[in-house]
Amino acid sequence: MTADTSRRLARSHGLICGDMAPGARNTICDVPGVRVGHVTQTQGNLRTGFTALVPHQGNVFRDKLPAALEVINGFGKSAGLMQVEELGTIETPILLTNTFAVGTGINALIRRAIAENPEIGRSTGTVNPVVMECNDGYLSDIQAMALTEADALAAIAVAGEDFEQGNVGAGTGMSAFGFKGGIGSASRVFEIGDKPHVLGTLVLANFGRPGDLTLPDGRKPHPADARQTEERGSVIIIMATDVPMSTRQLKRVAKRAGAGLGRLGAYYGNGSGDIAMAFSTAGRIQHYENVPILERKVLWEELIDVLFKAAAETTQEAVLNAMIAADPMKGYRGHKRPSLRDWLLPG
Amino acid sequence: MTADTSRRLARSHGLICGDMAPGARNTICDVPGVRVGHVTQTQGNLRTGFTALVPHQGNVFRDKLPAALEVINGFGKSAGLMQVEELGTIETPILLTNTFAVGTGINALIRRAIAENPEIGRSTGTVNPVVMECNDGYLSDIQAMALTEADALAAIAVAGEDFEQGNVGAGTGMSAFGFKGGIGSASRVFEIGDKPHVLGTLVLANFGRPGDLTLPDGRKPHPADARQTEERGSVIIIMATDVPMSTRQLKRVAKRAGAGLGRLGAYYGNGSGDIAMAFSTAGRIQHYENVPILERKVLWEELIDVLFKAAAETTQEAVLNAMIAADPMKGYRGHKRPSLRDWLLPG
Amino acid sequence: MTADTSRRLARSHGLICGDMAPGARNTICDVPGVRVGHVTQTQGNLRTGFTALVPHQGNVFRDKLPAALEVINGFGKSAGLMQVEELGTIETPILLTNTFAVGTGINALIRRAIAENPEIGRSTGTVNPVVMECNDGYLSDIQAMALTEADALAAIAVAGEDFEQGNVGAGTGMSAFGFKGGIGSASRVFEIGDKPHVLGTLVLANFGRPGDLTLPDGRKPHPADARQTEERGSVIIIMATDVPMSTRQLKRVAKRAGAGLGRLGAYYGNGSGDIAMAFSTAGRIQHYENVPILERKVLWEELIDVLFKAAAETTQEAVLNAMIAADPMKGYRGHKRPSLRDWLLPG
Amino acid sequence: MTADTSRRLARSHGLICGDMAPGARNTICDVPGVRVGHVTQTQGNLRTGFTALVPHQGNVFRDKLPAALEVINGFGKSAGLMQVEELGTIETPILLTNTFAVGTGINALIRRAIAENPEIGRSTGTVNPVVMECNDGYLSDIQAMALTEADALAAIAVAGEDFEQGNVGAGTGMSAFGFKGGIGSASRVFEIGDKPHVLGTLVLANFGRPGDLTLPDGRKPHPADARQTEERGSVIIIMATDVPMSTRQLKRVAKRAGAGLGRLGAYYGNGSGDIAMAFSTAGRIQHYENVPILERKVLWEELIDVLFKAAAETTQEAVLNAMIAADPMKGYRGHKRPSLRDWLLPG
Repeated sequence: MTADTSRRLARSHGLICGDMAPGARNTICDVPGVRVGHVTQTQGNLRTGFTALVPHQGNVFRDKLPAALEVINGFGKSAGLMQVEELGTIETPILLTNTFAVGTGINALIRRAIAENPEIGRSTGTVNPVVMECNDGYLSDIQAMALTEADALAAIAVAGEDFEQGNVGAGTGMSAFGFKGGIGSASRVFEIGDKPHVLGTLVLANFGRPGDLTLPDGRKPHPADARQTEERGSVIIIMATDVPMSTRQLKRVAKRAGAGLGRLGAYYGNGSGDIAMAFSTAGRIQHYENVPILERKVLWEELIDVLFKAAAETTQEAVLNAMIAADPMKGYRGHKRPSLRDWLLPG
Repeated sequence: MTADTSRRLARSHGLICGDMAPGARNTICDVPGVRVGHVTQTQGNLRTGFTALVPHQGNVFRDKLPAALEVINGFGKSAGLMQVEELGTIETPILLTNTFAVGTGINALIRRAIAENPEIGRSTGTVNPVVMECNDGYLSDIQAMALTEADALAAIAVAGEDFEQGNVGAGTGMSAFGFKGGIGSASRVFEIGDKPHVLGTLVLANFGRPGDLTLPDGRKPHPADARQTEERGSVIIIMATDVPMSTRQLKRVAKRAGAGLGRLGAYYGNGSGDIAMAFSTAGRIQHYENVPILERKVLWEELIDVLFKAAAETTQEAVLNAMIAADPMKGYRGHKRPSLRDWLLPG
Repeated sequence: MTADTSRRLARSHGLICGDMAPGARNTICDVPGVRVGHVTQTQGNLRTGFTALVPHQGNVFRDKLPAALEVINGFGKSAGLMQVEELGTIETPILLTNTFAVGTGINALIRRAIAENPEIGRSTGTVNPVVMECNDGYLSDIQAMALTEADALAAIAVAGEDFEQGNVGAGTGMSAFGFKGGIGSASRVFEIGDKPHVLGTLVLANFGRPGDLTLPDGRKPHPADARQTEERGSVIIIMATDVPMSTRQLKRVAKRAGAGLGRLGAYYGNGSGDIAMAFSTAGRIQHYENVPILERKVLWEELIDVLFKAAAETTQEAVLNAMIAADPMKGYRGHKRPSLRDWLLPG
Repeated sequence: MTADTSRRLARSHGLICGDMAPGARNTICDVPGVRVGHVTQTQGNLRTGFTALVPHQGNVFRDKLPAALEVINGFGKSAGLMQVEELGTIETPILLTNTFAVGTGINALIRRAIAENPEIGRSTGTVNPVVMECNDGYLSDIQAMALTEADALAAIAVAGEDFEQGNVGAGTGMSAFGFKGGIGSASRVFEIGDKPHVLGTLVLANFGRPGDLTLPDGRKPHPADARQTEERGSVIIIMATDVPMSTRQLKRVAKRAGAGLGRLGAYYGNGSGDIAMAFSTAGRIQHYENVPILERKVLWEELIDVLFKAAAETTQEAVLNAMIAADPMKGYRGHKRPSLRDWLLPG
């Protein structure tokens, strides 16, 4: 089992998703202010970690961002979604991790929010931690429940504008279409009213049955030796944009992740928790507002198609990037996953 | 069967719903710009009609209003709800009528919108007519399908700021809790940031089993002779406010209609189509916008409770007003409904 | 403008959607009991019609079928969806037509149900007509509102197990990806517990921007002359299966239409009403049951993936079949749409 | 501050909610097999705990129960809801606790499920822990995050058919309408097809503004000294029944909790996470089924109203029972809540 370490993105293999142009980094961090960090645990039987999406560099509890989500298939255990749906805001960084680390992620985000805002649960309400997950139990000893609150906080602490893709952070032990899955990202730039804007997407890809993957050129890569045919995966899709949008609009954008998954050959399998969340960095909502009526900017609805298209294209490309960036892996109980990159470069 | 013609409102019988103050008219027309009109058909076996809610006095297709809805119980045939949910706007007057006049109401609203906007279905998209309904088949020959497009248009044409309640328009043949139902309305005034605001509610009340009605003072009026025990009714609740709100917020407000229904002793019976729609007259959305990013005002979420409370109180009171304004009726096949007003004034 | 009249299906052009096997007809009528009929109007400025989906050959009001739906994008005016969502049944044939014929379709279904069940609206409740629509205003004079109740009833009356695809019935004036759209269908057969089963799909395809269409082999057909770039379309997807399923399961199946649309290059455009409905022919629910507790069969959830996959594949193929079966058309105001079949057979 | 220790139920004060008859215990444990247990922590600044609802006495992961939920107001942090919504089953006991103990509750349920089913996360999928919460931060030092996994497991271990109400378990530090809140329960018995059935409800009551509470007789108790006017509460409502029901039906039942809350004078305040979950003990769904098509019993929909009515009545009564069973409390920072029981017995 070897790994070619170059050509770690879909585009480097001529795989182009759609016709819109990517941003400078072609990641979610093309959206100004957004940062991503990883903590990876690979000792012993572990192939797991936390990935943190930090939506802006301030105090997120005090300066919330408009957000929404679409549950494409709800076979999953992510936390914090109900309140995002009701109130239309996020108020913590978003953690991605394995299914059995959600409780620990919640506790870490609560303690971090209290440390920054000692009034939480006292003079003001509580805080809504958002932790999203996939099951990495094929390659990692998920029963060990080995990740700690310190790991979660470290992922937030190291978040930056440049981050690795593939077998890192929450993506470390993930699988997709019988290949190695992981963390991937992509972005699209476009103009609205003559001004440049961007939508970026981060995925935790752990879904899809062997044989179903379809590349943009119509090829269907099948891993040489894919024993596990039952889908036990999930995919988490986080989208960020600097376009001012209402939560109703953001929900519509999030929903278009489903089109991107379809282009990959997926059909939102029964056992897969497929969830998309979208937020806008334009227009913070203060926890302590001092005016009763807020002035908000929102996109004119007739112009929203460019974001829908970007959502579908970046979802598709971010998953391919996750798979192509990922090295092959041998994990818990000797389970193996090959790399799609090796399939693409067989020679 | 006689009818006292005075004391046609809940308040005139000492029945007070909650503790907020009503507006000047104590109807939905306390919201500036909102008008209501009726066309009533009582000839022969008919006890039916159209009630039109005109949300503002301009061209509603060109100047849409933010709107949202809550399906409390979806055993109903109202039209146009899906698009309101998706896009968060209304673009026609709202028609209320009997279940089998929905198709005719749709056709009337389409033709009216085309007459005002000849580009519809040609150089621009189509139009989303909103028609909401209850089943008046107990007192009216609903199979006759006797209402015409002209009736629907006439209800819009006569809409004004003062309108009758009880056995008028769509409410003509409706029943509630074994009594006569009908059209009712109520409003609440309140301040947001030192400025006066109002929420008004219009109901088409045709729901509730005999014996379940509970008055604000705890009394439980039971009609003397209520044969039809199976609930085949529905209740439509329309709320208007001049507070600037997002559609997510309006949906939350609409949902509080359920609390008002609960206070009346209802439990959203299986056979009852219970639907609440809420719209704001603040902040029109132009069909032909000329800027890509819109400036919108929305309420700071922490101040929303006053609207929730007003929604519950006005729903409760509007239903009581509908029932108390309604005279007793003898209709199709000799079916009868007594008036709650007579029960309250037995002497 | 000429049309090759052979090779009217995707498979005849080597375009294969997925890897499951189609049924004998490769249409929704592979599901036993399901029939489809068309009435087409092409006189003068009209290019429109009704397509009727008759779910079984009995009295559908008395013997309802379990059904559910997914609103993929709710910019549409279909009728009857709310009650299907609440009660999980259909109780009339399903009509497909143009946006402005929904009211007429409702009226036709009501009158037909009353004729078959004179107790409707009298000794029992009302009936929930399901009418779904797309906007054919580019090729047809939709403002004429020319379709009649007799047209709707005729489409039901002529329904059979073999039906045409392309420019027929509701599909007559539809467009897709800048090409001619229309009515299409496909099916997939599979085994559950060693017994053969089928899922069939019928689409009314009127969506997609020129340039976005992607074929299964990766080609992206672009019509030579596509002026109308703004999406004003919609797509209706009806799925039938003989697998016994709960409405919760049927809703999950319907949702997978979104994956099929994604594979075609679509992203559920803002102006497109994209709605999927699924029903099962196994296990009728009688309007007048004589037992309080019903015995129902439902699929074990762990086996549902084969239906998800079939839903995605048939949605994709049915749209391609609609487009490839459709002849080129010149319609209202001289507007034209080329045929995808001609693009595939340029010589 | 004193507490009368008798007359700890609404009925002992002549407060009757509706007209249906309660079961033998008038608690959720009237549903055969359902058990409830508490662990209470009152040392130092703590007034908190866990309450466990054990839905049957077997291995809940292997023998799941049909379940559904309604988010009445989603300002809350409960875990596990998404998967219940998607798959329609519960597969762990349900834990109730304070907002900041959700992560710990999740971890406890995961470890317990693994101990009982070592294949979880290995040869089979993961497990979906359901933990529901309210914020007890007014009377307890919620920032301490003092509850442990052992506390959660102990609440499950001590669960029995008889359990205390009021200031116990998760209810220890809760408030309602300015009075002391807590854990409450009620039930209703009825016949379906000549066979006796029951619906029981358990609430964690921590909602409602001072002055809004309305008793069934129309009285409106106001606490003498209610400083905290902003609603920061929540209410969790769990319903169990032995009637065989589909998850669609159970969702409809859960929704009727909103009617019960409305009868109490509540309007689902902005800051209140109001969530209802309903499950049926009739018809387990095995994790490892050995037949592809399951035989399920479900209620004939036309008979569902009795469950709707029972849902509304038990929600109302369970909240009153929680408040009347609760002694007055002095907690963290000297905050106090009087007992509604004392208000009812002022002499």
